[in-house]
Amino acid sequence: MTMPIPVDILLVEDNLADAELTVRALTKSNVTNHVRVVHDGVEALEYLRAIGRYADRSITALPKVILLDVKLPLMSGIEVLRQCKADPHLCHVPIVMLTSSREEPDIQSCYNLGVNSYIVKPVDFQQFTDVVRQAGLYWLLLNEPPSAP
Amino acid sequence: MTMPIPVDILLVEDNLADAELTVRALTKSNVTNHVRVVHDGVEALEYLRAIGRYADRSITALPKVILLDVKLPLMSGIEVLRQCKADPHLCHVPIVMLTSSREEPDIQSCYNLGVNSYIVKPVDFQQFTDVVRQAGLYWLLLNEPPSAP
Repeated sequence: MTMPIPVDILLVEDNLADAELTVRALTKSNVTNHVRVVHDGVEALEYLRAIGRYADRSITALPKVILLDVKLPLMSGIEVLRQCKADPHLCHVPIVMLTSSREEPDIQSCYNLGVNSYIVKPVDFQQFTDVVRQAGLYWLLLNEPPSAP
Repeated sequence: MTMPIPVDILLVEDNLADAELTVRALTKSNVTNHVRVVHDGVEALEYLRAIGRYADRSITALPKVILLDVKLPLMSGIEVLRQCKADPHLCHVPIVMLTSSREEPDIQSCYNLGVNSYIVKPVDFQQFTDVVRQAGLYWLLLNEPPSAP
């Protein structure tokens, strides 16, 4: 039996084109190949809590950072953020909103809930790629993650 | 009467050589010229709350990010972090620990108190400069700061 490779980044993104672009920006620039993509808020919490579709996952294997969209099906990114920051098992995992929303109420809600960082996705393709690469490098190489719970 | 230029980064660092190196890394790479350095935890809170020595400052002019050492005279960086995150006026300001401490209890205490990010200062001069530059770029250009209180 082989141990699964730990996931560095959990990307929560319902837009398939944006998800693909983000993963490609991270892998092509050698930031990491270990990205897990989930497509809605409920799946994100199932993954992080190792329940439901992810009941066979180890609950202690947490990503080094979560990149979280605001607008998501089934459960919004803000609700996922709220539940993570209220969960003693998950509250230390850095969460970065990566979203097209520059709306002030979204930004304030996220800071109120203790988000670690908030990034607005650039519309321009090359800028988007650069921002994702820089954010990946920051959270995987510069930031010292919390230890496993 | 001219308006004071807003401070982008509040650097709380008692080591004068490290403070100078950090400011130089930020200015030489054109990240920002608007760094304010304070040298202990009490002065940091006076600055942020616009009291004491900083009573003539506008309380609404908050930095976009605070770079905070852990080991500081008069009041530790961890106590400064605790007081900031418990203060409705200051809790949204991103705080990044920038410290030589890689000790697990320090890292955990900071995440427990809601730190936004934790960076261990590299010992090597060139690496230190690179890390400061990248952190400055991340928090001033990529991160969307909370609006003024």
